[in-house]
Amino acid sequence: MRCEEELLPMNEQPIGVFDSGVGGLTVLKQLALCLPYERLIYLGDTARLPYGTKSRETVLKYSMRNASFLLEKGVKCLVVACNTASSLALEEMKERFAMPVIGVIHPGAKKAAAASRTRKVGVIGTLATVRSRAYETAIECYGADIEVTSVSCPLFVALAEEGWVDDEVTYRVAERYLRPVQGKGIDVLVLGCTHYPLLKPVLSEVMGKEVALVDSAEAAANEVAVSLRAEGLAAAAEGAAAGGAPTICLTDRSLHFLELGEKILERPLGEVEYVDLG
Amino acid sequence: MRCEEELLPMNEQPIGVFDSGVGGLTVLKQLALCLPYERLIYLGDTARLPYGTKSRETVLKYSMRNASFLLEKGVKCLVVACNTASSLALEEMKERFAMPVIGVIHPGAKKAAAASRTRKVGVIGTLATVRSRAYETAIECYGADIEVTSVSCPLFVALAEEGWVDDEVTYRVAERYLRPVQGKGIDVLVLGCTHYPLLKPVLSEVMGKEVALVDSAEAAANEVAVSLRAEGLAAAAEGAAAGGAPTICLTDRSLHFLELGEKILERPLGEVEYVDLG
Repeated sequence: MRCEEELLPMNEQPIGVFDSGVGGLTVLKQLALCLPYERLIYLGDTARLPYGTKSRETVLKYSMRNASFLLEKGVKCLVVACNTASSLALEEMKERFAMPVIGVIHPGAKKAAAASRTRKVGVIGTLATVRSRAYETAIECYGADIEVTSVSCPLFVALAEEGWVDDEVTYRVAERYLRPVQGKGIDVLVLGCTHYPLLKPVLSEVMGKEVALVDSAEAAANEVAVSLRAEGLAAAAEGAAAGGAPTICLTDRSLHFLELGEKILERPLGEVEYVDLG
Repeated sequence: MRCEEELLPMNEQPIGVFDSGVGGLTVLKQLALCLPYERLIYLGDTARLPYGTKSRETVLKYSMRNASFLLEKGVKCLVVACNTASSLALEEMKERFAMPVIGVIHPGAKKAAAASRTRKVGVIGTLATVRSRAYETAIECYGADIEVTSVSCPLFVALAEEGWVDDEVTYRVAERYLRPVQGKGIDVLVLGCTHYPLLKPVLSEVMGKEVALVDSAEAAANEVAVSLRAEGLAAAAEGAAAGGAPTICLTDRSLHFLELGEKILERPLGEVEYVDLG
Protein backbone atom coordinates (compact mmCIF):
# COMPACT_ATOMS: atom_id res chain seq x y z
CA MET A 1 0.00 0.00 0.00
CA ARG A 2 2.86 2.36 0.86
CA CYS A 3 4.20 2.28 -2.70
CA GLU A 4 0.89 3.28 -4.24
CA GLU A 5 0.49 6.05 -1.66
CA GLU A 6 3.87 7.47 -2.55
CA LEU A 7 2.79 8.01 -6.12
CA LEU A 8 -0.03 10.25 -4.94
CA PRO A 9 0.54 13.96 -4.29
CA MET A 10 0.66 14.94 -0.60
CA ASN A 11 -2.87 16.31 -0.53
CA GLU A 12 -4.23 12.97 -1.72
CA GLN A 13 -2.58 11.11 1.16
CA PRO A 14 -4.88 9.84 3.92
CA ILE A 15 -5.76 11.44 7.24
CA GLY A 16 -4.68 9.25 10.16
CA VAL A 17 -6.96 8.93 13.19
CA PHE A 18 -6.34 6.97 16.38
CA ASP A 19 -8.04 6.11 19.62
CA SER A 20 -7.56 3.41 22.25
CA GLY A 21 -10.71 1.69 21.00
CA VAL A 22 -14.06 2.26 19.42
CA GLY A 23 -14.92 5.71 20.82
CA GLY A 24 -12.85 7.62 18.28
CA LEU A 25 -15.15 6.35 15.55
CA THR A 26 -17.49 9.20 16.57
CA VAL A 27 -14.75 11.51 15.27
CA LEU A 28 -14.11 9.37 12.18
CA LYS A 29 -17.81 9.53 11.33
CA GLN A 30 -17.78 13.34 11.50
CA LEU A 31 -14.61 13.49 9.40
CA ALA A 32 -16.25 11.32 6.73
CA LEU A 33 -19.26 13.67 6.74
CA CYS A 34 -17.28 16.95 6.67
CA LEU A 35 -14.52 15.76 4.35
CA PRO A 36 -16.04 13.35 1.84
CA TYR A 37 -13.06 13.64 -0.52
CA GLU A 38 -10.48 12.58 2.03
CA ARG A 39 -9.08 9.09 2.55
CA LEU A 40 -9.24 8.06 6.20
CA ILE A 41 -7.20 5.52 8.16
CA TYR A 42 -8.32 4.66 11.69
CA LEU A 43 -6.20 2.84 14.25
CA GLY A 44 -7.87 1.42 17.37
CA ASP A 45 -5.34 0.25 19.98
CA THR A 46 -7.67 -2.48 21.23
CA ALA A 47 -4.74 -4.58 22.55
CA ARG A 48 -3.93 -1.93 25.15
CA LEU A 49 -7.26 -0.23 25.87
CA PRO A 50 -8.39 1.53 27.99
CA TYR A 51 -6.04 4.51 28.22
CA GLY A 52 -8.08 6.51 30.73
CA THR A 53 -6.90 4.61 33.80
CA LYS A 54 -3.23 4.53 32.79
CA SER A 55 -0.30 6.82 33.57
CA ARG A 56 0.90 9.74 31.46
CA GLU A 57 4.13 7.91 30.67
CA THR A 58 2.32 4.84 29.36
CA VAL A 59 -0.30 6.80 27.38
CA LEU A 60 2.52 8.83 25.83
CA LYS A 61 4.39 5.66 24.82
CA TYR A 62 1.29 4.12 23.22
CA SER A 63 0.33 7.39 21.48
CA MET A 64 3.78 7.77 19.92
CA ARG A 65 3.64 4.19 18.71
CA ASN A 66 0.19 4.71 17.16
CA ALA A 67 1.32 7.95 15.51
CA SER A 68 4.44 6.27 14.09
CA PHE A 69 2.32 3.46 12.64
CA LEU A 70 0.03 5.96 10.89
CA LEU A 71 3.04 7.92 9.69
CA GLU A 72 4.35 4.78 8.04
CA LYS A 73 1.02 4.56 6.25
CA GLY A 74 1.87 7.93 4.72
CA VAL A 75 -0.74 10.11 6.45
CA LYS A 76 -0.66 13.88 5.84
CA CYS A 77 -2.30 14.80 9.12
CA LEU A 78 -2.86 13.15 12.50
CA VAL A 79 -6.13 13.27 14.45
CA VAL A 80 -5.94 12.17 18.06
CA ALA A 81 -9.53 11.03 18.53
CA CYS A 82 -9.02 10.16 22.19
CA ASN A 83 -9.42 12.62 25.03
CA THR A 84 -6.91 10.87 27.27
CA ALA A 85 -4.19 10.84 24.59
CA SER A 86 -5.06 14.43 23.62
CA SER A 87 -4.73 15.48 27.27
CA LEU A 88 -1.47 13.70 27.96
CA ALA A 89 0.46 13.40 24.69
CA LEU A 90 -0.62 16.07 22.18
CA GLU A 91 2.18 18.55 22.80
CA GLU A 92 4.83 15.84 22.45
CA MET A 93 3.28 14.61 19.20
CA LYS A 94 3.18 18.16 17.82
CA GLU A 95 6.86 18.59 18.65
CA ARG A 96 7.87 15.26 17.17
CA PHE A 97 5.91 15.36 13.90
CA ALA A 98 6.03 18.03 11.21
CA MET A 99 2.46 17.44 9.99
CA PRO A 100 -0.68 18.95 11.54
CA VAL A 101 -1.61 17.10 14.74
CA ILE A 102 -5.14 17.78 15.96
CA GLY A 103 -6.62 16.62 19.24
CA VAL A 104 -10.15 16.73 20.62
CA ILE A 105 -9.63 18.90 23.73
CA HIS A 106 -9.27 22.35 22.15
CA PRO A 107 -12.13 21.95 19.67
CA GLY A 108 -14.40 20.79 22.50
CA ALA A 109 -13.25 23.57 24.84
CA LYS A 110 -13.83 26.22 22.18
CA LYS A 111 -17.32 24.93 21.45
CA ALA A 112 -18.17 24.83 25.16
CA ALA A 113 -16.88 28.36 25.79
CA ALA A 114 -18.93 29.68 22.87
CA ALA A 115 -22.08 27.90 24.03
CA SER A 116 -22.09 28.86 27.72
CA ARG A 117 -24.22 31.81 28.82
CA THR A 118 -23.94 31.22 32.54
CA ARG A 119 -20.12 31.00 32.14
CA LYS A 120 -20.20 27.82 34.18
CA VAL A 121 -19.16 24.65 32.39
CA GLY A 122 -18.98 21.03 33.54
CA VAL A 123 -16.50 18.51 32.17
CA ILE A 124 -16.71 14.73 32.52
CA GLY A 125 -13.87 12.44 31.48
CA THR A 126 -11.62 9.55 32.37
CA LEU A 127 -9.47 9.64 35.50
CA ALA A 128 -6.39 10.53 33.42
CA THR A 129 -8.11 13.33 31.48
CA VAL A 130 -9.60 14.92 34.60
CA ARG A 131 -6.32 14.65 36.52
CA SER A 132 -4.44 16.33 33.65
CA ARG A 133 -6.66 19.46 33.92
CA ALA A 134 -6.32 19.75 30.12
CA TYR A 135 -9.92 20.98 29.70
CA GLU A 136 -9.55 23.66 32.40
CA THR A 137 -6.44 24.98 30.65
CA ALA A 138 -8.04 24.88 27.21
CA ILE A 139 -11.36 26.43 28.26
CA GLU A 140 -9.44 29.29 29.88
CA CYS A 141 -7.97 30.11 26.43
CA TYR A 142 -11.45 30.72 25.03
CA GLY A 143 -13.11 32.24 28.08
CA ALA A 144 -11.00 33.30 31.04
CA ASP A 145 -14.20 34.11 32.97
CA ILE A 146 -15.55 30.56 32.78
CA GLU A 147 -15.75 28.46 35.93
CA VAL A 148 -15.07 24.78 35.21
CA THR A 149 -16.14 21.82 37.36
CA SER A 150 -14.67 18.48 36.35
CA VAL A 151 -15.48 14.95 37.47
CA SER A 152 -14.11 11.61 36.37
CA CYS A 153 -16.56 8.84 35.52
CA PRO A 154 -14.47 5.64 35.34
CA LEU A 155 -17.39 3.24 34.84
CA PHE A 156 -18.87 5.04 31.82
CA VAL A 157 -16.46 3.46 29.33
CA ALA A 158 -17.23 -0.03 30.63
CA LEU A 159 -20.99 0.68 30.54
CA ALA A 160 -20.79 2.01 26.99
CA GLU A 161 -18.65 -0.97 25.92
CA GLU A 162 -21.21 -3.31 27.52
CA GLY A 163 -23.89 -1.61 25.41
CA TRP A 164 -25.91 -0.46 28.44
CA VAL A 165 -26.36 2.92 26.83
CA ASP A 166 -29.93 3.70 27.85
CA ASP A 167 -30.25 1.62 30.95
CA GLU A 168 -31.45 1.96 34.51
CA VAL A 169 -28.06 0.92 35.95
CA THR A 170 -26.28 3.50 33.82
CA TYR A 171 -28.83 6.09 34.94
CA ARG A 172 -28.01 5.39 38.59
CA VAL A 173 -24.27 5.49 37.97
CA ALA A 174 -24.69 8.78 36.09
CA GLU A 175 -26.75 10.29 38.91
CA ARG A 176 -23.97 9.50 41.33
CA TYR A 177 -21.09 10.70 39.15
CA LEU A 178 -22.84 13.89 38.04
CA ARG A 179 -23.89 15.04 41.51
CA PRO A 180 -20.82 17.31 41.88
CA VAL A 181 -21.66 19.20 38.65
CA GLN A 182 -25.32 19.60 39.50
CA GLY A 183 -26.51 22.70 41.33
CA LYS A 184 -23.46 24.62 40.06
CA GLY A 185 -25.44 26.59 37.49
CA ILE A 186 -23.67 24.98 34.54
CA ASP A 187 -25.42 25.20 31.18
CA VAL A 188 -22.84 23.18 29.22
CA LEU A 189 -21.46 19.72 29.95
CA VAL A 190 -18.43 18.66 27.92
CA LEU A 191 -18.37 14.94 27.16
CA GLY A 192 -14.62 14.65 27.61
CA CYS A 193 -14.28 11.06 26.40
CA THR A 194 -15.18 9.79 22.95
CA HIS A 195 -17.20 6.95 24.48
CA TYR A 196 -19.57 9.26 26.30
CA PRO A 197 -21.69 10.39 23.33
CA LEU A 198 -23.00 6.80 23.33
CA LEU A 199 -24.54 7.54 26.74
CA LYS A 200 -26.26 10.79 25.64
CA PRO A 201 -29.84 9.63 26.40
CA VAL A 202 -28.97 8.94 30.04
CA LEU A 203 -26.72 11.99 30.43
CA SER A 204 -29.29 14.41 29.08
CA GLU A 205 -32.01 12.91 31.26
CA VAL A 206 -29.87 13.29 34.38
CA MET A 207 -28.66 16.81 33.55
CA GLY A 208 -31.98 18.17 32.27
CA LYS A 209 -32.84 20.03 29.08
CA GLU A 210 -31.26 23.33 30.12
CA VAL A 211 -27.76 21.79 29.98
CA ALA A 212 -26.24 21.41 26.50
CA LEU A 213 -24.07 18.34 25.97
CA VAL A 214 -20.94 19.17 23.99
CA ASP A 215 -19.07 16.42 22.24
CA SER A 216 -15.86 17.18 20.46
CA ALA A 217 -16.31 14.98 17.41
CA GLU A 218 -17.96 17.60 15.21
CA ALA A 219 -15.76 20.44 16.42
CA ALA A 220 -12.61 18.37 15.89
CA ALA A 221 -13.66 17.46 12.35
CA ASN A 222 -14.20 21.15 11.58
CA GLU A 223 -10.75 21.99 12.90
CA VAL A 224 -9.23 19.30 10.69
CA ALA A 225 -10.99 20.79 7.64
CA VAL A 226 -9.75 24.30 8.47
CA SER A 227 -6.22 23.10 9.12
CA LEU A 228 -5.99 21.10 5.88
CA ARG A 229 -7.14 24.09 3.84
CA ALA A 230 -4.72 26.41 5.65
CA GLU A 231 -1.81 24.07 4.96
CA GLY A 232 -2.81 23.43 1.35
CA LEU A 233 -3.34 19.77 2.18
CA ALA A 234 -7.03 19.32 1.33
CA ALA A 235 -7.82 16.60 -1.20
CA ALA A 236 -9.29 17.58 -4.54
CA ALA A 237 -12.95 16.72 -5.12
CA GLU A 238 -11.95 14.59 -8.09
CA GLY A 239 -9.15 12.90 -6.10
CA ALA A 240 -8.55 9.19 -5.68
CA ALA A 241 -10.38 8.88 -2.38
CA ALA A 242 -13.83 10.27 -3.13
CA GLY A 243 -16.54 8.16 -1.53
CA GLY A 244 -14.16 5.44 -0.33
CA ALA A 245 -14.73 3.66 2.97
CA PRO A 246 -12.28 4.37 5.81
CA THR A 247 -9.55 1.81 6.43
CA ILE A 248 -9.82 0.36 9.93
CA CYS A 249 -6.76 -1.12 11.69
CA LEU A 250 -6.88 -2.76 15.12
CA THR A 251 -4.14 -4.05 17.41
CA ASP A 252 -6.39 -6.82 18.74
CA ARG A 253 -9.40 -8.74 17.47
CA SER A 254 -12.39 -7.36 19.32
CA LEU A 255 -15.98 -8.43 18.82
CA HIS A 256 -17.03 -5.41 20.86
CA PHE A 257 -15.28 -3.08 18.46
CA LEU A 258 -16.92 -4.65 15.44
CA GLU A 259 -20.42 -4.63 16.94
CA LEU A 260 -20.30 -1.18 18.51
CA GLY A 261 -18.30 0.23 15.58
CA GLU A 262 -21.05 -0.54 13.08
CA LYS A 263 -23.59 1.10 15.38
CA ILE A 264 -21.48 4.26 15.68
CA LEU A 265 -20.64 4.54 11.99
CA GLU A 266 -24.12 3.39 10.95
CA ARG A 267 -22.52 1.36 8.15
CA PRO A 268 -20.58 -1.89 7.83
CA LEU A 269 -16.93 -1.56 8.86
CA GLY A 270 -15.67 -3.48 5.84
CA GLU A 271 -12.45 -5.45 6.10
CA VAL A 272 -10.45 -4.78 9.27
CA GLU A 273 -6.66 -4.99 9.23
CA TYR A 274 -5.04 -6.46 12.35
CA VAL A 275 -1.63 -5.05 13.19
CA ASP A 276 0.91 -6.01 15.86
CA LEU A 277 2.41 -2.94 17.54
CA GLY A 278 4.22 -4.99 20.22
CA MET B 1 19.44 -8.90 42.37
CA ARG B 2 19.97 -11.61 39.76
CA CYS B 3 23.53 -12.26 40.91
CA GLU B 4 22.53 -12.78 44.52
CA GLU B 5 19.72 -15.09 43.41
CA GLU B 6 22.11 -17.24 41.45
CA LEU B 7 24.14 -17.97 44.55
CA LEU B 8 21.08 -19.44 46.24
CA PRO B 9 20.14 -23.09 45.74
CA MET B 10 17.12 -23.67 43.47
CA ASN B 11 14.69 -24.30 46.32
CA GLU B 12 15.52 -20.87 47.80
CA GLN B 13 14.63 -19.10 44.54
CA PRO B 14 11.39 -17.12 44.48
CA ILE B 15 7.95 -18.14 43.24
CA GLY B 16 6.79 -15.92 40.38
CA VAL B 17 3.14 -14.85 40.25
CA PHE B 18 1.44 -12.76 37.60
CA ASP B 19 -1.93 -11.22 36.80
CA SER B 20 -3.12 -8.42 34.53
CA GLY B 21 -3.64 -6.24 37.58
CA VAL B 22 -4.54 -6.27 41.23
CA GLY B 23 -6.86 -9.30 41.36
CA GLY B 24 -4.04 -11.84 41.52
CA LEU B 25 -3.03 -10.42 44.89
CA THR B 26 -5.81 -12.60 46.35
CA VAL B 27 -3.64 -15.54 45.26
CA LEU B 28 -0.43 -13.89 46.47
CA LYS B 29 -1.99 -13.41 49.89
CA GLN B 30 -2.89 -17.10 50.14
CA LEU B 31 0.59 -18.09 49.00
CA ALA B 32 2.13 -15.93 51.71
CA LEU B 33 -0.14 -17.60 54.29
CA CYS B 34 0.41 -21.20 53.10
CA LEU B 35 4.10 -20.86 52.28
CA PRO B 36 5.66 -18.45 54.79
CA TYR B 37 9.19 -19.60 53.96
CA GLU B 38 8.96 -18.82 50.26
CA ARG B 39 10.10 -15.65 48.52
CA LEU B 40 7.38 -14.25 46.29
CA ILE B 41 7.61 -11.98 43.23
CA TYR B 42 4.38 -10.56 41.81
CA LEU B 43 4.03 -8.96 38.40
CA GLY B 44 0.89 -6.92 37.61
CA ASP B 45 0.62 -6.04 33.91
CA THR B 46 -1.18 -2.77 34.66
CA ALA B 47 -0.03 -1.20 31.36
CA ARG B 48 -2.11 -3.67 29.38
CA LEU B 49 -5.00 -4.58 31.69
CA PRO B 50 -7.67 -5.84 31.41
CA TYR B 51 -7.06 -9.22 29.75
CA GLY B 52 -10.64 -10.47 29.99
CA THR B 53 -11.94 -8.56 26.97
CA LYS B 54 -8.95 -9.35 24.74
CA SER B 55 -8.29 -12.09 22.21
CA ARG B 56 -6.54 -15.41 22.88
CA GLU B 57 -3.64 -14.37 20.67
CA THR B 58 -3.06 -11.13 22.60
CA VAL B 59 -3.48 -12.70 26.05
CA LEU B 60 -1.02 -15.42 25.03
CA LYS B 61 1.53 -12.83 23.89
CA TYR B 62 1.25 -10.84 27.14
CA SER B 63 1.35 -14.01 29.29
CA MET B 64 4.54 -15.24 27.61
CA ARG B 65 6.15 -11.85 28.12
CA ASN B 66 5.19 -11.81 31.80
CA ALA B 67 6.47 -15.35 32.28
CA SER B 68 9.78 -14.50 30.58
CA PHE B 69 10.23 -11.48 32.84
CA LEU B 70 9.70 -13.62 35.94
CA LEU B 71 12.02 -16.28 34.55
CA GLU B 72 14.75 -13.67 34.27
CA LYS B 73 14.19 -12.94 37.94
CA GLY B 74 15.18 -16.56 38.56
CA VAL B 75 11.83 -17.96 39.72
CA LYS B 76 11.58 -21.70 40.39
CA CYS B 77 7.86 -21.94 39.72
CA LEU B 78 5.23 -19.87 37.90
CA VAL B 79 1.77 -19.12 39.25
CA VAL B 80 -0.72 -17.72 36.74
CA ALA B 81 -2.97 -15.82 39.14
CA CYS B 82 -5.33 -14.71 36.38
CA ASN B 83 -8.28 -16.73 35.19
CA THR B 84 -8.17 -15.32 31.66
CA ALA B 85 -4.46 -16.11 31.19
CA SER B 86 -4.96 -19.53 32.84
CA SER B 87 -7.83 -20.25 30.42
CA LEU B 88 -6.05 -19.12 27.28
CA ALA B 89 -2.32 -19.55 27.78
CA LEU B 90 -1.54 -22.18 30.44
CA GLU B 91 -0.87 -25.11 28.13
CA GLU B 92 1.54 -23.06 26.01
CA MET B 93 3.40 -21.86 29.11
CA LYS B 94 3.68 -25.44 30.41
CA GLU B 95 5.12 -26.53 27.06
CA ARG B 96 7.57 -23.65 26.89
CA PHE B 97 8.92 -23.67 30.45
CA ALA B 98 10.54 -26.57 32.28
CA MET B 99 9.50 -25.38 35.75
CA PRO B 100 6.11 -26.06 37.38
CA VAL B 101 3.43 -23.73 35.93
CA ILE B 102 0.25 -23.55 37.98
CA GLY B 103 -2.95 -21.77 36.98
CA VAL B 104 -6.15 -21.03 38.88
CA ILE B 105 -8.70 -22.92 36.76
CA HIS B 106 -7.98 -26.52 37.79
CA PRO B 107 -7.66 -25.81 41.53
CA GLY B 108 -10.99 -23.91 41.42
CA ALA B 109 -12.68 -26.61 39.34
CA LYS B 110 -11.51 -29.36 41.70
CA LYS B 111 -12.75 -27.46 44.74
CA ALA B 112 -16.11 -26.80 43.09
CA ALA B 113 -16.56 -30.44 42.05
CA ALA B 114 -15.78 -31.60 45.59
CA ALA B 115 -18.18 -29.09 47.14
CA SER B 116 -21.26 -29.65 44.97
CA ARG B 117 -23.99 -31.98 46.23
CA THR B 118 -26.60 -31.07 43.62
CA ARG B 119 -23.97 -31.69 40.88
CA LYS B 120 -24.96 -28.37 39.36
CA VAL B 121 -22.28 -25.69 39.36
CA GLY B 122 -22.32 -22.07 38.15
CA VAL B 123 -19.26 -20.26 36.82
CA ILE B 124 -18.88 -16.51 36.39
CA GLY B 125 -15.90 -14.97 34.62
CA THR B 126 -14.67 -12.54 32.02
CA LEU B 127 -15.83 -12.75 28.42
CA ALA B 128 -12.57 -14.45 27.41
CA THR B 129 -12.67 -17.03 30.22
CA VAL B 130 -16.29 -17.94 29.60
CA ARG B 131 -15.80 -18.18 25.82
CA SER B 132 -12.78 -20.48 26.32
CA ARG B 133 -14.97 -23.05 28.19
CA ALA B 134 -11.87 -23.78 30.31
CA TYR B 135 -13.94 -24.28 33.48
CA GLU B 136 -16.37 -26.69 31.78
CA THR B 137 -13.45 -28.79 30.58
CA ALA B 138 -11.69 -28.70 33.96
CA ILE B 139 -14.81 -29.44 36.03
CA GLU B 140 -15.51 -32.45 33.82
CA CYS B 141 -12.13 -33.91 34.89
CA TYR B 142 -13.23 -33.93 38.53
CA GLY B 143 -16.91 -34.75 38.09
CA ALA B 144 -18.17 -35.91 34.70
CA ASP B 145 -21.74 -35.86 36.08
CA ILE B 146 -21.68 -32.13 36.90
CA GLU B 147 -23.81 -29.74 34.89
CA VAL B 148 -22.08 -26.36 34.46
CA THR B 149 -23.77 -23.04 33.65
CA SER B 150 -21.40 -20.19 32.81
CA VAL B 151 -22.04 -16.48 32.39
CA SER B 152 -19.68 -13.62 31.67
CA CYS B 153 -19.90 -10.50 33.83
CA PRO B 154 -17.85 -7.83 32.00
CA LEU B 155 -18.70 -4.95 34.35
CA PHE B 156 -17.61 -6.72 37.55
CA VAL B 157 -13.91 -5.93 37.06
CA ALA B 158 -14.65 -2.22 36.51
CA LEU B 159 -16.97 -2.15 39.55
CA ALA B 160 -14.35 -3.85 41.74
CA GLU B 161 -11.64 -1.51 40.44
CA GLU B 162 -13.91 1.47 41.20
CA GLY B 163 -14.22 0.16 44.75
CA TRP B 164 -18.01 -0.26 44.58
CA VAL B 165 -17.72 -3.61 46.24
CA ASP B 166 -20.81 -3.51 48.47
CA ASP B 167 -22.96 -1.12 46.58
CA GLU B 168 -26.53 -0.83 45.33
CA VAL B 169 -25.41 -0.37 41.71
CA THR B 170 -23.23 -3.47 41.91
CA TYR B 171 -26.16 -5.33 43.47
CA ARG B 172 -28.37 -4.46 40.49
CA VAL B 173 -25.68 -5.39 37.97
CA ALA B 174 -25.15 -8.70 39.80
CA GLU B 175 -28.89 -9.46 39.80
CA ARG B 176 -28.95 -9.01 36.05
CA TYR B 177 -25.79 -11.00 35.29
CA LEU B 178 -26.63 -13.85 37.66
CA ARG B 179 -30.18 -14.40 36.44
CA PRO B 180 -29.11 -17.21 34.04
CA VAL B 181 -27.50 -19.20 36.88
CA GLN B 182 -30.44 -18.76 39.25
CA GLY B 183 -33.19 -21.36 39.33
CA LYS B 184 -30.80 -23.98 37.93
CA GLY B 185 -30.40 -25.74 41.27
CA ILE B 186 -26.70 -24.85 41.57
CA ASP B 187 -25.17 -25.05 45.03
CA VAL B 188 -21.70 -23.80 44.05
CA LEU B 189 -20.74 -20.65 42.18
CA VAL B 190 -17.13 -20.46 40.97
CA LEU B 191 -15.73 -16.93 41.03
CA GLY B 192 -13.78 -17.36 37.81
CA CYS B 193 -11.91 -14.07 37.94
CA THR B 194 -9.50 -13.00 40.66
CA HIS B 195 -11.31 -9.66 40.99
CA TYR B 196 -14.61 -11.24 41.95
CA PRO B 197 -13.79 -12.21 45.55
CA LEU B 198 -13.83 -8.44 46.19
CA LEU B 199 -17.56 -8.50 45.35
CA LYS B 200 -18.38 -11.41 47.68
CA PRO B 201 -20.85 -9.48 49.89
CA VAL B 202 -23.03 -8.60 46.89
CA LEU B 203 -22.64 -11.99 45.19
CA SER B 204 -23.60 -13.95 48.27
CA GLU B 205 -26.61 -11.72 48.88
CA VAL B 206 -27.84 -12.19 45.33
CA MET B 207 -27.21 -15.97 45.25
CA GLY B 208 -28.45 -16.71 48.75
CA LYS B 209 -26.88 -18.69 51.58
CA GLU B 210 -27.44 -22.13 50.04
CA VAL B 211 -24.93 -21.35 47.26
CA ALA B 212 -21.25 -21.66 48.20
CA LEU B 213 -18.90 -19.19 46.52
CA VAL B 214 -15.67 -20.83 45.41
CA ASP B 215 -12.64 -18.72 44.76
CA SER B 216 -9.50 -20.33 43.46
CA ALA B 217 -6.94 -18.39 45.49
CA GLU B 218 -6.75 -20.83 48.39
CA ALA B 219 -6.97 -23.94 46.20
CA ALA B 220 -4.26 -22.61 43.87
CA ALA B 221 -1.95 -21.87 46.80
CA ASN B 222 -2.43 -25.44 48.05
CA GLU B 223 -1.58 -26.81 44.63
CA VAL B 224 1.59 -24.74 44.57
CA ALA B 225 2.60 -26.13 47.97
CA VAL B 226 1.98 -29.73 46.84
CA SER B 227 3.81 -29.20 43.56
CA LEU B 228 6.89 -27.64 45.21
CA ARG B 229 7.16 -30.53 47.65
CA ALA B 230 6.72 -33.09 44.87
CA GLU B 231 9.46 -31.47 42.81
CA GLY B 232 11.80 -31.03 45.77
CA LEU B 233 11.60 -27.27 45.33
CA ALA B 234 10.15 -26.17 48.68
CA ALA B 235 12.23 -23.63 50.60
CA ALA B 236 13.74 -24.65 53.92
CA ALA B 237 12.19 -23.11 57.04
CA GLU B 238 15.53 -21.55 57.91
CA GLY B 239 16.01 -20.28 54.32
CA ALA B 240 16.83 -16.76 53.23
CA ALA B 241 13.23 -15.73 52.55
CA ALA B 242 11.47 -16.46 55.81
CA GLY B 243 9.06 -13.69 56.72
CA GLY B 244 10.10 -11.38 53.88
CA ALA B 245 7.55 -9.17 52.11
CA PRO B 246 6.64 -10.06 48.51
CA THR B 247 8.33 -8.06 45.75
CA ILE B 248 5.74 -6.24 43.63
CA CYS B 249 6.50 -5.25 40.02
CA LEU B 250 4.09 -3.30 37.81
CA THR B 251 4.21 -2.37 34.13
CA ASP B 252 2.42 0.93 34.79
CA ARG B 253 2.01 3.29 37.70
CA SER B 254 -1.49 2.75 39.03
CA LEU B 255 -3.01 4.47 42.03
CA HIS B 256 -5.85 1.96 41.89
CA PHE B 257 -3.41 -0.91 42.25
CA LEU B 258 -1.73 0.63 45.24
CA GLU B 259 -4.99 1.49 47.01
CA LEU B 260 -6.84 -1.72 46.29
CA GLY B 261 -3.67 -3.80 46.71
CA GLU B 262 -3.20 -2.76 50.32
CA LYS B 263 -6.85 -3.60 51.02
CA ILE B 264 -6.47 -7.07 49.52
CA LEU B 265 -3.16 -7.90 51.19
CA GLU B 266 -4.19 -6.15 54.43
CA ARG B 267 -0.65 -4.82 54.72
CA PRO B 268 1.42 -2.06 53.08
CA LEU B 269 2.73 -3.03 49.65
CA GLY B 270 6.21 -1.70 50.33
CA GLU B 271 8.33 -0.43 47.49
CA VAL B 272 6.93 -1.17 44.05
CA GLU B 273 9.26 -1.75 41.09
CA TYR B 274 8.11 -0.35 37.74
CA VAL B 275 9.19 -2.34 34.70
CA ASP B 276 8.83 -1.66 30.99
CA LEU B 277 7.78 -4.78 29.09
CA GLY B 278 7.19 -2.91 25.82
